[in-house]
Amino acid sequence: MRTVRAVLDRALAEGRAALTAPEGKAVADAYGIPTPAEGLAETADEAVALATRIGFPVAMKIVSPGIPHKTEAGGVRISLTSAAEVRGAFTAIVSRARAYAPDARILGVQVQRMVAEGTEVLVGTVTDPAFGKIVAFGLGGVLVEVLKDVTFRLAPATEDDARSMLDGIRAAEILRGVRGAPGVDRDALAGLIVRVSRLAADFPEIGEVDLNPVFASASGVMAADVRILLVAQQPHRRRTYTREEILASMGRLMRPASVTVIGASDAPGKIGNSVMRNLIDGGFPGEIHPVNPKADDILGRKAYQSVLDVPGEPDVAVFAIPARFVPAALEEVGRKGVPNAVLIPSGFAETGEHALQERIVEIAERYGVRLLGPNIYGYYSTWQDLCATFCTPYDVRGPVALTSQSGGIGMAILGFARSTGTGVSAIVGLGNKSDLDEDDLLTWFGEDPHTACVAMHLEDLKDGRAFVAAARATVPKKPVVVLKAGRTAAGARAAGSHTGALAGDDAVYDDILRQAGVIRAPGLSEMLEYARALPVLPAPRGDNVVVITGAGGSGVLLSDALVDNGLSLMEIPPDLDEAFRAFIPPFGAAGNPVDITGGEPPSTYEATIRLGLEDPRIHALVLGYWHTIVTPPMVFAELTARVVAEFRERGIEKPVVASLAGDVEVEEACRYLFEHGVVAYPYTTERPVAVLGAKYAWARAAGLLGTGTAGEAD
Amino acid sequence: MRTVRAVLDRALAEGRAALTAPEGKAVADAYGIPTPAEGLAETADEAVALATRIGFPVAMKIVSPGIPHKTEAGGVRISLTSAAEVRGAFTAIVSRARAYAPDARILGVQVQRMVAEGTEVLVGTVTDPAFGKIVAFGLGGVLVEVLKDVTFRLAPATEDDARSMLDGIRAAEILRGVRGAPGVDRDALAGLIVRVSRLAADFPEIGEVDLNPVFASASGVMAADVRILLVAQQPHRRRTYTREEILASMGRLMRPASVTVIGASDAPGKIGNSVMRNLIDGGFPGEIHPVNPKADDILGRKAYQSVLDVPGEPDVAVFAIPARFVPAALEEVGRKGVPNAVLIPSGFAETGEHALQERIVEIAERYGVRLLGPNIYGYYSTWQDLCATFCTPYDVRGPVALTSQSGGIGMAILGFARSTGTGVSAIVGLGNKSDLDEDDLLTWFGEDPHTACVAMHLEDLKDGRAFVAAARATVPKKPVVVLKAGRTAAGARAAGSHTGALAGDDAVYDDILRQAGVIRAPGLSEMLEYARALPVLPAPRGDNVVVITGAGGSGVLLSDALVDNGLSLMEIPPDLDEAFRAFIPPFGAAGNPVDITGGEPPSTYEATIRLGLEDPRIHALVLGYWHTIVTPPMVFAELTARVVAEFRERGIEKPVVASLAGDVEVEEACRYLFEHGVVAYPYTTERPVAVLGAKYAWARAAGLLGTGTAGEAD
Repeated sequence: MRTVRAVLDRALAEGRAALTAPEGKAVADAYGIPTPAEGLAETADEAVALATRIGFPVAMKIVSPGIPHKTEAGGVRISLTSAAEVRGAFTAIVSRARAYAPDARILGVQVQRMVAEGTEVLVGTVTDPAFGKIVAFGLGGVLVEVLKDVTFRLAPATEDDARSMLDGIRAAEILRGVRGAPGVDRDALAGLIVRVSRLAADFPEIGEVDLNPVFASASGVMAADVRILLVAQQPHRRRTYTREEILASMGRLMRPASVTVIGASDAPGKIGNSVMRNLIDGGFPGEIHPVNPKADDILGRKAYQSVLDVPGEPDVAVFAIPARFVPAALEEVGRKGVPNAVLIPSGFAETGEHALQERIVEIAERYGVRLLGPNIYGYYSTWQDLCATFCTPYDVRGPVALTSQSGGIGMAILGFARSTGTGVSAIVGLGNKSDLDEDDLLTWFGEDPHTACVAMHLEDLKDGRAFVAAARATVPKKPVVVLKAGRTAAGARAAGSHTGALAGDDAVYDDILRQAGVIRAPGLSEMLEYARALPVLPAPRGDNVVVITGAGGSGVLLSDALVDNGLSLMEIPPDLDEAFRAFIPPFGAAGNPVDITGGEPPSTYEATIRLGLEDPRIHALVLGYWHTIVTPPMVFAELTARVVAEFRERGIEKPVVASLAGDVEVEEACRYLFEHGVVAYPYTTERPVAVLGAKYAWARAAGLLGTGTAGEAD
Repeated sequence: MRTVRAVLDRALAEGRAALTAPEGKAVADAYGIPTPAEGLAETADEAVALATRIGFPVAMKIVSPGIPHKTEAGGVRISLTSAAEVRGAFTAIVSRARAYAPDARILGVQVQRMVAEGTEVLVGTVTDPAFGKIVAFGLGGVLVEVLKDVTFRLAPATEDDARSMLDGIRAAEILRGVRGAPGVDRDALAGLIVRVSRLAADFPEIGEVDLNPVFASASGVMAADVRILLVAQQPHRRRTYTREEILASMGRLMRPASVTVIGASDAPGKIGNSVMRNLIDGGFPGEIHPVNPKADDILGRKAYQSVLDVPGEPDVAVFAIPARFVPAALEEVGRKGVPNAVLIPSGFAETGEHALQERIVEIAERYGVRLLGPNIYGYYSTWQDLCATFCTPYDVRGPVALTSQSGGIGMAILGFARSTGTGVSAIVGLGNKSDLDEDDLLTWFGEDPHTACVAMHLEDLKDGRAFVAAARATVPKKPVVVLKAGRTAAGARAAGSHTGALAGDDAVYDDILRQAGVIRAPGLSEMLEYARALPVLPAPRGDNVVVITGAGGSGVLLSDALVDNGLSLMEIPPDLDEAFRAFIPPFGAAGNPVDITGGEPPSTYEATIRLGLEDPRIHALVLGYWHTIVTPPMVFAELTARVVAEFRERGIEKPVVASLAGDVEVEEACRYLFEHGVVAYPYTTERPVAVLGAKYAWARAAGLLGTGTAGEAD
């Protein structure tokens, strides 16, 4: 640590943004990062002597604080195999460097033993705006740079993290050895990743580390090039709250006894009127206190001049006043000791009014008031009959908590929920996230007994690490679905290293959310559908999925969908195959899919579904129904629901999903099945399997399949 | 040609499945495929002399017809740089080969100049079960083998095909040169691909060609290893029909004047009864003649003993009799000269009765009767009021022809169409495809004036080349959507070469269907939705897509979806930006997406949509609607429909799609918009953009965007 500290301090004192190669080597040595034998030559004679001592072939590179891009400056020569070549190279490198950057101070030329054995890989770290220090691993070389086959973890990474990275790239097979080539030393490579990640985590001023290439072989690893970039400035820290503080204030937000509405109004069409009406009409059983200096009474409730006059200790102050009046009212809310301010008004950062937003954050931090918003539709807490929004009420209680950063997406959540009858525990708008954000909400919903599934739309994370911590605490108990918007935004990050160039925002989010055990919804429809369907399904207890289908064509498409969703068709053992065959026509195909063939009566569906639920080696069922006059849709739906319920009574719970191919009657059958614990969709083979895949992804992350922890979810 | 013929004949005469390296070189020479200098040495002395003449370093390889896997046999040595090494290698190779395969005839050792300059690529050909000879191109080396970054075209490939292959791999950038490395000689590489593909196409007995690695550099290409595998047997050819014959028989199938039903029945529940009822109740205006030896009269129509007794010249015979009676009845149909037999019964190849199916095919080929099926639900031709199926009738006439290989998928088509009110021109079941298949149907639908879009579910293609030809003829006129099921089936192909191992079924289908200009639906839902929506949209005339959104959050998700679907957000020029800004609040974001912000009145939506339609630089609009009380859903829907119609009147037609975020009223608004030419969906940002993406994919393939032909569609 002391060596590294000294190197960094000197470089920062000199105002440099990068370490020189010898400095990089010193840092590497201090952290046990193996580098090739090398030395610094100030003259051609010294270079020859060095090369002779460390052994040919050697590479030579200019060492100059003023020349960060050595290749561009003509400052790199490789594969030098004789004293004569080394001598010539020294002269050439120095003269080119002088020509390239006349003012740069040239410290000499680094002479390095060339290692070129094994597979080229890249190990590095960057400082991510959402997640802070993260470590990257990928195959090195030009080809991989083009294919961007890299994976990321939070730094410092554990040994397990590092090992999962070796398996986390598309070209993972290469590391295990292909076409008879030996695999790399995985312990050594994982150890290197861990040490590099610690280095970055230990020193905030290290912006990026780039070991590229690292040569990894069966006999070890060697970082042929070490590049370290510095950052002088550390980001401003917000006030933070402990988990207990978060649970306390969120508890009062989501289960308030008293709500005050600042800017409550009698005038229809005003937000302050809609909020009051929704609170009252929604049946909120607690106190509702309107605040409006110009009224005595609003919707039959006594109105107060100021929140300071409101009786008791309100848990929530809902703001329905223009942005410019918010700071003064918020001061009063702070003085009153109200723990939560729900800021519906827009006119803050989203319209360019950053200073105004900073101001309310400062007030809130001073008083310890938590802010929801600003620029939101409000929030619903259905189990409290609380509808603190200006939108239409929603009162279907159920197990799903949904949040959205955007108001538009919030309205889509509301419409979808109403259309499908999805039961929700809460819908929360986050808007500008000036204070409360996804990690606070997730911390609460993780503990909330009414919530069995959390689905969140977000465009960014203010504090990715806090979110990961909240997700890790929640995932073992309930699934967390995230729709991360802005996936494909061109990463505008200025990249100073290969690692930096490879760390596109979305790649980082994708890897780190996955590691946190979060289910990432590919789109809005999937987020909504997962939210609706995941709580319907019991958790699977193992990987064996069996497809039972009346239509061979559906069986093929369902199998496609299973593979697409990372699920595996169980290999049916002979005795089980025999058992299925007993129920299906001789030309039907057992195996998996079990093709019972079209035109079969209800008894065939029932017998095979029973067998699927009964046999303990089978863990999940995918049903492909084909509409025929022999087994009409509702007959299929009722028999399936009945059999599933019967097994549930007996304590046998397995996820069952269904794809219904048929005329419009299948729509009613799907609704019936959904209400009876079977996730069913008409006219699609993809959606039921996608939901099952999401349930499996969660079960794996939650460690329910015995095949890994949250850290190893794929 | 003569050289190659002689080499192949000799090898086949000797019963060999592979050419030796010298034979491979002879073939390569004949087709202008550059290979390194080399020769065959029978003794160690000859090897040394050869190596000295052609220059070091050399590679040496055993030459023995009995040793196809040279490396396994210890028969390969590389990077030999001296006479002594060559001498030692000769001895070692020969003795190892003797030990490995004592009975193999050893012809000597090939001594080859080693070329290792440039990028390693792979060029090869395989014989695909659906498409016949296809040519493959990819980067070579171990890494690419792991990543399977390969692309395929039909052989022989044109120069344009070959060039599109260079751009068709994920690592295409490498070939253009990265990090200062020079690009490869694209003319030489494309030329090599063309010549290899011609070689394979010229000689049916060449099963696989594998040039791996080929070294491609700025100065040319060199195939370092040539491997050619032979096939002795050619597949059995079916009777083929000319395009005119297909159009003639399909015309009579789809627009019949007279239909006869073999196995017509009075008994409800029987297929022969359902078919009769559907024909009659569907309102088919032509003649309907039941055939049933046991009845005089069926559903009020005179019944005949045999089809031979039916008056006139029926265009179609629908079979509703058990499989075992089909051959005899089909003989009569042939003798009667009926051109089409629609074989509803199952009990043929799908139940293992291959011989029975062969028998009916033989009868049909003898008479020139075209067979639809067997094992199908029948078919609908709505513009003829023809419902020749045992399913429920469907009579919503419209522009989409749908076909399915599977009956279950056919029922899903019917249900989806009825549920969404999709207008169809035909729904056709293909079942076992004993004769008529997708290319016949596509040939017809391509010409059918009632059909504006064709959507096909298929699990395989009997004749991939005929399908590609039919697709190429159709795509310039109307979109062809294909759902290829069985995508992820583990390719059970026995691979004798690298190219073979890389040619998984789905990769080949994907590349070749795309090249044919077909839109590949990723799943059943998409196939159905594209079929419904594509005819609603006019074709785009250029690539500039603009998003106009009331919800910033939708704008982000719509942008994600655009990138996912290969579409590009137009870069808005300053004057246009200025023009949009005139309509939106100062804090709204112009640029693209144009964020008009929430809470805007209908006039803001209208003004910006008008501008989007008016400005000729904009080619397509994606609307993101946010439900507010200021602009309720139906107000948005009506204004959008009105403006779009007004511009259409003026001859300005651009595709407009919309995502509606809001409460359940948005569902009605979406239906209204759909009926008025705007493709709109609630609660999803992905689906409207996916449909637009499919329309663009078609427009590009059809050459409407001026940026390519069907052959260059991506």
